[in-house]
Amino acid sequence: MPYQGKSVIVTGGSGFIGSNLTLRLVREGAHVTVVDPCVPGCGGDPRNLRDVLDRVRILGVDIAQPAVFEDAIRQADVVFNLAGEISHIHSMMNPERDLQLNTTSQLRFLQACANWNPGVRVVFAGTRQVYGVPEYLPVDEDHPINPVDFNGIHKYAATMYHLMLSRTGLLDACVLRLTNVYGPRMSLTVPGQGFLSAYLRKLELGEPLQVFGDGQQLRDPLHVDDAVEAFLMVGAARPLPSRSYNIGGPEALSLLEITRIACATAGLPEPTLRPFPAERASIDIGSYRTDSSRIRAELGWAPQVRFEDGFAQALGFYRRQAAAHGR
Amino acid sequence: MPYQGKSVIVTGGSGFIGSNLTLRLVREGAHVTVVDPCVPGCGGDPRNLRDVLDRVRILGVDIAQPAVFEDAIRQADVVFNLAGEISHIHSMMNPERDLQLNTTSQLRFLQACANWNPGVRVVFAGTRQVYGVPEYLPVDEDHPINPVDFNGIHKYAATMYHLMLSRTGLLDACVLRLTNVYGPRMSLTVPGQGFLSAYLRKLELGEPLQVFGDGQQLRDPLHVDDAVEAFLMVGAARPLPSRSYNIGGPEALSLLEITRIACATAGLPEPTLRPFPAERASIDIGSYRTDSSRIRAELGWAPQVRFEDGFAQALGFYRRQAAAHGR
Repeated sequence: MPYQGKSVIVTGGSGFIGSNLTLRLVREGAHVTVVDPCVPGCGGDPRNLRDVLDRVRILGVDIAQPAVFEDAIRQADVVFNLAGEISHIHSMMNPERDLQLNTTSQLRFLQACANWNPGVRVVFAGTRQVYGVPEYLPVDEDHPINPVDFNGIHKYAATMYHLMLSRTGLLDACVLRLTNVYGPRMSLTVPGQGFLSAYLRKLELGEPLQVFGDGQQLRDPLHVDDAVEAFLMVGAARPLPSRSYNIGGPEALSLLEITRIACATAGLPEPTLRPFPAERASIDIGSYRTDSSRIRAELGWAPQVRFEDGFAQALGFYRRQAAAHGR
Repeated sequence: MPYQGKSVIVTGGSGFIGSNLTLRLVREGAHVTVVDPCVPGCGGDPRNLRDVLDRVRILGVDIAQPAVFEDAIRQADVVFNLAGEISHIHSMMNPERDLQLNTTSQLRFLQACANWNPGVRVVFAGTRQVYGVPEYLPVDEDHPINPVDFNGIHKYAATMYHLMLSRTGLLDACVLRLTNVYGPRMSLTVPGQGFLSAYLRKLELGEPLQVFGDGQQLRDPLHVDDAVEAFLMVGAARPLPSRSYNIGGPEALSLLEITRIACATAGLPEPTLRPFPAERASIDIGSYRTDSSRIRAELGWAPQVRFEDGFAQALGFYRRQAAAHGR
């Protein structure tokens, strides 16, 4: 248990992946400081941490104000940096907000880490979105960078901060470029959290699912437990063999297959096919499949949860949650 | 003369390359609007345009306030986008200033161009700095992106804005990734404008030159007249074959050779070798040499001015200027 007694920061720790990571770190015996102002629209929800409120220090501040938690930065053994806005569509509607949340904030936060805890290990939640439309499949870490929306540009700017500050020894950072992640504690009510969030929302309400286009685009959904394991492994690795890892799911499935599995899991009829809406077509990237072989070879990480099993577990979580709240 | 009677905007038009481009455009018969607030430290100088004040509209506003020149944006046939801060060392001392000047401002400006003049041709002054330490020489446009300082990160974010907005048809942009440019109208008094600016300043004052390290790092200096020609060609090309071009000089010379030529041109003794200062060593990128074959093949551009000739011409310019001002 390498996190027993360690001091860690989880930025965005009230969000989807951040809260799952925080819950796991608490179980591992870490002293966790969560930094998350739960910016509306970003998916953070204080209720995600309700079971550990007495065992986690939760600061409702923006990472752009690091002076508020200088002590935590100075003491941190590892910083898990998951703060940010993930919505591609929000970023196209309000690019300057996205720049502030994903780049400017990170600049301030990372400078504070470099100043107050030089050389600290930082594990950043990056995104496959920076690769844009794949030039080849599966996509490895050497794939050209070609983001198709403002969100991808701003996440990549933050990625470059981590890499450049590591090159100069001010940080010891690593960027995980995550594929579509799903599981418990996704925000189902905030738009723009990805199609798997929208699916879970609809299924929980008993609504039928639709597939845009012919549904033949590949995706490799990753269960959040597998994502959390990757964060923990990278946070603990000494020394760190690489500064970027692609993190993908165990299977590449077509959107149609994914949707069929989702419907079957929920006991609903087969999905229907619909034409691609214009505002989505412009930022669609076609098929995607992750080459995760670097982290598998270097750290032994591999995704364990098949989509069929993981989706059933996630849907069960949301149904129990709804039942508990009398919905 | 494809610019006769055309409406063009030159952002950063009071700066080094921007003013040379503006003077040339005026000679070609273009209607030029210069947008340049001459931000202290960025190299812009209203005196660079003193010979064409009656033939150029000069607006001392920031590109982050595009509403001030909405009419010029709506009417522009071509936008030459050279606004920005180029100093790598400034960017490390004050990264947030660099982010504002090179990224946030560009975001606002490019959104305005896309809104008010969708599909307009934009030619952006990028930098070889985005490639970082070369993995191979000469460096072509497919070289990995790996900036070594905040300036390179922020210039690359702006580069991605141009490319992404072109992908979606909102702009018709092209990024020129320039090597070390030199010539008349460089700012010699503002620090951080590159070693050739520092050389010209010292030689004008009759001071001896020093070379840091062993002087064996290659550079391929580009005379500003050649750079201007590249901007004009790319601005006029219809259709545009590519969205990125590397723009380098005609020869790769060692820093020691460059310095010897500079000293000989000025009639000064041979340069002395000095150890690398620590603050420069951390952002030194070793040898660099541009592969400009893409723009040569696609548009017929090739650098014409050999360093020996161009440097003598530049030094003559500064000496005449100093004499005219009684220095």
